[in-house]
Amino acid sequence: MLEKNIQTFIACDCEYDEAKIVLFGAPFDSTTSFRPGTRFASQAMRSESFGIETFSAYQDKDMLDIKVFDSGDLELPFGSPERALADIQYRTGVIMDDGKIPCMIGGEHLVTLGAVRAAAERFSDLHIVHFDAHADLRDDYLGVKLSHACVLHRCHDIVGDGKIYQFGIRSGDRDEFEFAKAHTHMQRFNFGGLKNAVKEIGDAPVYFTLDLDVLDPSDFPGTGTPEAGGVRFTALLWAIEQVSKLNIVGFDVNELSPAYDPSGRSTALACKLLREILLRFYK
Amino acid sequence: MLEKNIQTFIACDCEYDEAKIVLFGAPFDSTTSFRPGTRFASQAMRSESFGIETFSAYQDKDMLDIKVFDSGDLELPFGSPERALADIQYRTGVIMDDGKIPCMIGGEHLVTLGAVRAAAERFSDLHIVHFDAHADLRDDYLGVKLSHACVLHRCHDIVGDGKIYQFGIRSGDRDEFEFAKAHTHMQRFNFGGLKNAVKEIGDAPVYFTLDLDVLDPSDFPGTGTPEAGGVRFTALLWAIEQVSKLNIVGFDVNELSPAYDPSGRSTALACKLLREILLRFYK
Amino acid sequence: MLEKNIQTFIACDCEYDEAKIVLFGAPFDSTTSFRPGTRFASQAMRSESFGIETFSAYQDKDMLDIKVFDSGDLELPFGSPERALADIQYRTGVIMDDGKIPCMIGGEHLVTLGAVRAAAERFSDLHIVHFDAHADLRDDYLGVKLSHACVLHRCHDIVGDGKIYQFGIRSGDRDEFEFAKAHTHMQRFNFGGLKNAVKEIGDAPVYFTLDLDVLDPSDFPGTGTPEAGGVRFTALLWAIEQVSKLNIVGFDVNELSPAYDPSGRSTALACKLLREILLRFYK
Amino acid sequence: MLEKNIQTFIACDCEYDEAKIVLFGAPFDSTTSFRPGTRFASQAMRSESFGIETFSAYQDKDMLDIKVFDSGDLELPFGSPERALADIQYRTGVIMDDGKIPCMIGGEHLVTLGAVRAAAERFSDLHIVHFDAHADLRDDYLGVKLSHACVLHRCHDIVGDGKIYQFGIRSGDRDEFEFAKAHTHMQRFNFGGLKNAVKEIGDAPVYFTLDLDVLDPSDFPGTGTPEAGGVRFTALLWAIEQVSKLNIVGFDVNELSPAYDPSGRSTALACKLLREILLRFYK
Amino acid sequence: MLEKNIQTFIACDCEYDEAKIVLFGAPFDSTTSFRPGTRFASQAMRSESFGIETFSAYQDKDMLDIKVFDSGDLELPFGSPERALADIQYRTGVIMDDGKIPCMIGGEHLVTLGAVRAAAERFSDLHIVHFDAHADLRDDYLGVKLSHACVLHRCHDIVGDGKIYQFGIRSGDRDEFEFAKAHTHMQRFNFGGLKNAVKEIGDAPVYFTLDLDVLDPSDFPGTGTPEAGGVRFTALLWAIEQVSKLNIVGFDVNELSPAYDPSGRSTALACKLLREILLRFYK
Amino acid sequence: MLEKNIQTFIACDCEYDEAKIVLFGAPFDSTTSFRPGTRFASQAMRSESFGIETFSAYQDKDMLDIKVFDSGDLELPFGSPERALADIQYRTGVIMDDGKIPCMIGGEHLVTLGAVRAAAERFSDLHIVHFDAHADLRDDYLGVKLSHACVLHRCHDIVGDGKIYQFGIRSGDRDEFEFAKAHTHMQRFNFGGLKNAVKEIGDAPVYFTLDLDVLDPSDFPGTGTPEAGGVRFTALLWAIEQVSKLNIVGFDVNELSPAYDPSGRSTALACKLLREILLRFYK
Repeated sequence: MLEKNIQTFIACDCEYDEAKIVLFGAPFDSTTSFRPGTRFASQAMRSESFGIETFSAYQDKDMLDIKVFDSGDLELPFGSPERALADIQYRTGVIMDDGKIPCMIGGEHLVTLGAVRAAAERFSDLHIVHFDAHADLRDDYLGVKLSHACVLHRCHDIVGDGKIYQFGIRSGDRDEFEFAKAHTHMQRFNFGGLKNAVKEIGDAPVYFTLDLDVLDPSDFPGTGTPEAGGVRFTALLWAIEQVSKLNIVGFDVNELSPAYDPSGRSTALACKLLREILLRFYK
Repeated sequence: MLEKNIQTFIACDCEYDEAKIVLFGAPFDSTTSFRPGTRFASQAMRSESFGIETFSAYQDKDMLDIKVFDSGDLELPFGSPERALADIQYRTGVIMDDGKIPCMIGGEHLVTLGAVRAAAERFSDLHIVHFDAHADLRDDYLGVKLSHACVLHRCHDIVGDGKIYQFGIRSGDRDEFEFAKAHTHMQRFNFGGLKNAVKEIGDAPVYFTLDLDVLDPSDFPGTGTPEAGGVRFTALLWAIEQVSKLNIVGFDVNELSPAYDPSGRSTALACKLLREILLRFYK
Repeated sequence: MLEKNIQTFIACDCEYDEAKIVLFGAPFDSTTSFRPGTRFASQAMRSESFGIETFSAYQDKDMLDIKVFDSGDLELPFGSPERALADIQYRTGVIMDDGKIPCMIGGEHLVTLGAVRAAAERFSDLHIVHFDAHADLRDDYLGVKLSHACVLHRCHDIVGDGKIYQFGIRSGDRDEFEFAKAHTHMQRFNFGGLKNAVKEIGDAPVYFTLDLDVLDPSDFPGTGTPEAGGVRFTALLWAIEQVSKLNIVGFDVNELSPAYDPSGRSTALACKLLREILLRFYK
Repeated sequence: MLEKNIQTFIACDCEYDEAKIVLFGAPFDSTTSFRPGTRFASQAMRSESFGIETFSAYQDKDMLDIKVFDSGDLELPFGSPERALADIQYRTGVIMDDGKIPCMIGGEHLVTLGAVRAAAERFSDLHIVHFDAHADLRDDYLGVKLSHACVLHRCHDIVGDGKIYQFGIRSGDRDEFEFAKAHTHMQRFNFGGLKNAVKEIGDAPVYFTLDLDVLDPSDFPGTGTPEAGGVRFTALLWAIEQVSKLNIVGFDVNELSPAYDPSGRSTALACKLLREILLRFYK
Repeated sequence: MLEKNIQTFIACDCEYDEAKIVLFGAPFDSTTSFRPGTRFASQAMRSESFGIETFSAYQDKDMLDIKVFDSGDLELPFGSPERALADIQYRTGVIMDDGKIPCMIGGEHLVTLGAVRAAAERFSDLHIVHFDAHADLRDDYLGVKLSHACVLHRCHDIVGDGKIYQFGIRSGDRDEFEFAKAHTHMQRFNFGGLKNAVKEIGDAPVYFTLDLDVLDPSDFPGTGTPEAGGVRFTALLWAIEQVSKLNIVGFDVNELSPAYDPSGRSTALACKLLREILLRFYK
Repeated sequence: MLEKNIQTFIACDCEYDEAKIVLFGAPFDSTTSFRPGTRFASQAMRSESFGIETFSAYQDKDMLDIKVFDSGDLELPFGSPERALADIQYRTGVIMDDGKIPCMIGGEHLVTLGAVRAAAERFSDLHIVHFDAHADLRDDYLGVKLSHACVLHRCHDIVGDGKIYQFGIRSGDRDEFEFAKAHTHMQRFNFGGLKNAVKEIGDAPVYFTLDLDVLDPSDFPGTGTPEAGGVRFTALLWAIEQVSKLNIVGFDVNELSPAYDPSGRSTALACKLLREILLRFYK
């Protein structure tokens, strides 16, 4: 008898109970219910992941040896950010409550807020490590508080001063950079100070959010707001190795927008990077 | 002394006071603040309009002989449909109160609701003529009431039974088609019955909303949800001629998504069509 | 507990035992193991099928009311056509032996040969109805017998003279057209004579193979060898209605190559067409 | 011993002396006012021509049975229209003086002027048959007389009143349409009156110029100024059959801009069309 | 009362009288020998500039604090380089005569000649700093003197030996490199020697011309003749800082061809770079 | 009398007898007879090579001063790898037997096997230098032995242990990396150890195979399986200089897939690189 068509990120096909890390997609980017942008990232990554190997030549480790479960995509209501965030928060919480680490594939960066809400409910003294080209620290954007441009400000509302570490930031308005000086740890342009940050954070629970546009657009053109002057892929691999030393309780990878890159290399890079992250974070 | 760079839809450069028709753009499609979709339609149409002629070989009329004013784009808050609709309603109302006809360039189809609200406040017995591939009659979409998939249902909430005439519809769920049977006049697939509809409507005030995906995707690939089996460009020209006999108090053209058509012909067609509409509707 | 990510063509999610029609993908197009062409069709169609409705405005029927099972894609060895065909033949046979109708999504047109071999083993007097721009009747192509350009010739080797009905053909070399005169029923350019063919075939078992490039490239640019002068989408809907009167024992839809159409409308059309076929063929 | 790489349009590989028709490319596009790119047409057509068959299912004739020579592309100086036209005129003249029919592949439409100059020197009472979306009858364009937008006006300077027959025209400014009324035979939108025109022209020598944008953009998106509302491919095949009854002394096919159509179908159509023209015009 | 639609490069919206720098576009590309398209650069940059911030994280300065005026695009006659250059020269002269610094957005590189002519009339001892992948020192190109490939040779005709400083050059024919040895200062591949050049030039008036293809194609694919092995974005930022120490009397940014980069990142980079240049050059 | 259209890679137009290096294309990538992938590389490179200069600013040498012959493309039977390899082996052998060095432009990487077979027949102690992102050392791929993923394993079958030097490898399965440890010299990620390898190899005959995906996808997006983390263009230039010190008896450049890079820069880079290789290898 034939089986249903199951599609997972490559090699993420163990049973739920065995898994230490649980993937899910948060395909949210707007009130438009079909098409453009980051909402296609999770599906594209699952499909394209079969173009990469399960083995990492960087770590001499293999996805076949670890236990990750891909629980598919949330069905999120476009046009209602608040409800979408509630759904994300719920799914994240279920995974955490089962003692597993959630790995969310965005979606626009706003989705991070849902996961951070879930994490903050469960882990006191939550820290956030944030890689991004953009500060995302606006208080509102044209009067709207729940916008991707405000997501780290909203996270700050929850975790408070000194808990957010930002790296690679190279774009924002003046107010955002001033907010950062007062309330977050921000490293512009690169990963300078990351090793120290890892020491400072120590054993505290950490939510790690990776906006892929922290990468230079030469490496990663497939994103909505490409910002020249970013970090290179190999620098990011190094930075992920550092982050993996932390006590990660949840993480996400967001802002891949597959359609902007007809060569497909942005999606391929995102897949390879997720493989490297999973192999690093799996313990 | 040099002048500022003024950019209008081709030949829409009279003074506001002289104008009988006033254009504006409603670049709204999501909470994502930069990139994909219909929010780029109005700017693209202004730019590309200089690739068409001001003269119509179909009507032997010339844009140089009519008075249209292009008032630019609204700056709409992504992530808050209600506020975006309020801004649209306000701009539409100002133009109507000055005795002029508003012509809105969308944006996703939801923007129509703002304009219809303004029209219904000012014109009793408002009728709506709606060309579209999709019924847009859902009551809600994943629980959200202000969605492009619900926009005609929301309009029906305002104008009531028997006032909405829909043409070209070829996609929807079963409930939408049943709602149509009970509450609107719906012609599937084509413009059959349009002449009669024009007679029936008579002198009543009419808001005309043109979702460009009523066109066959062979004519108009540049849209988010292309539906095979649509009407052809020449049929649409004919239909617009019929509609022009009505008492139009406002109209819109929406759902052009320039980036989906690298040939640029969808934007070129939208420009040519808008020229033909303006020349027809101008009296 | 969370579930694995199951992805089917829209609404094809019943249990295998209940199903009357069983889908599978045959993503074969070359010895190149990753990328271009028709091998991406089945995955793309599953993904994009969520952009269409389950309800058909043409038939007033709904996918939610029929039982179709999507059994996923075969994993086919590139570089060895003979082995790929054997795998296809086996899967087709399993489905037929369970009393169900197989629906294969290609892949290049050569995949049809595997399914026809399975059908011919099980159904004597097998007829073939073939819609295509290309005759596909070469005896060999640069010395190779198992080529997409030869697939109907290979089918003729199996079913013999007078059993193959070809429609829409507008490209081939002189020998192919002469072969057709002697051995098949061929209608050039359109569906002329289809009603008569349906009568002639009567109750005989029929394998139906639909090369989507029978469509005009204006409707369907997303294919490897677009041939101007094809049939339109609505004509094809009509032709499918005629074919549905036959005793269909298996069918396929092939030669969608999603990457050639950045607007996505070719994949969208293929999804809509498959919905219409499934609703017509389901009895 | 190995041979040099010779690349011709498919099957145009006889010796020069045997040929009745001689192809050449005129890859020039520097007066193009909207979107350039036609300079790549001739090379693209040679490459892509190997994707079509030599046999025509429309005429039951084969390119293998006729004698056409492909003499390659002129190397034209960008930035100097006058010198480019002189080179075209010279090449056209050489071919005519050898008793053969020149077939030029543009390039922008201005290239026609070079060929018409050569033809008018050699054939008195020269007529011109012109298929196009655009009138191309401006006297100057931003002060420039040698512009693609003026090319038929320049031809009229040479051949005079009543010698130019224009079909399919649907774009131009008011002056051009008035010029046409006074000086040329113009049929808007379609091929109405073509049969009569063929009778009227009789045995007079004819230069035939085919701007491919006469086609509807749904058939032919790969051009710089796509104009909705054009003729379909099959109508154009019919029109070419009519034209083939004339005394053709030279012809061209122009305004293909391959890069605007990532599906490649515009180039494929141009190749197929040129095959049909060559088979019709060859006597 | 509603206002006309004014579109400027981001934040370049002061009054003309207040401005120290005045932008204009020179959308001309008709001598381009390989792949045209730069005529769309200025419009694309204005549109896309709203996707970047006004604040520079590199300089801690904000466009909101400086006074730049955008005077729109020249309407240049395609097909007549001499007339186009005259129009550019005139506009440049007007701005200089008003005591302001002209900033021209090309267009192909030939446009620089018009601006240099205006500058040389007004400033004796004019020096030129030139960043480019290509030497642009040919004496003629296929017999044409006014070609983008000759533009620096034409500038040398005006300013004479030793006044032109070229950086980043990695392509040219042998004669161009020999001309450079005799007549200009040329640094191949990178910005080596730029600091010394700045010292040497001292207070002399400088026209700065930036061909964006000096950048590596990995950073900047959207140009007609991408040359591997270029400088990176951050190196270019450094080089601009050096150049800003000079006495700049005019400058241009040219050879962006937006259509060659579907990701949009080349246009985004050009916008960001222009922001950095304006903030550096404004005094 | 006019000449046939001869198209060669730029400046590779001497007579066969004079040539020291002979180019040919091996446009093989699948059983699909038309379209995607690497089979279009050789034609694209010939066309685009006219966009680069014949002069190298890196070596101060000019293609005009060396003798290279372009013998065009093989016509290879898709669907039969064994026959395609035989044709490649034959052509390679003819060139070698005439005392010349063959330069093959792929095609997928499998084509290398044909050339290596020819070389190994003629040169005992043949070594292979291999630049690639992928190990290509699988013993079979889904049961198929003649696959691009196995090509170096097949070469190892011929030349044996310790004769293959691999550089830049960053992708493969665990078995491939273990095979490499036992049987080849493999340098992961970069060109470390290349100088030593050159010394070790000494005067032995060398076949050099360059899979262009060894380059970082930021430099070279136009390939089927882009792998982040590759070498940069300038590093590759350096590595080629090292390789040129060896006794090269044949070489190839493969895996360019032009259609994946709409900017055209991948093809441009491949042309420039081939120019640099030819100038280096020519002695």
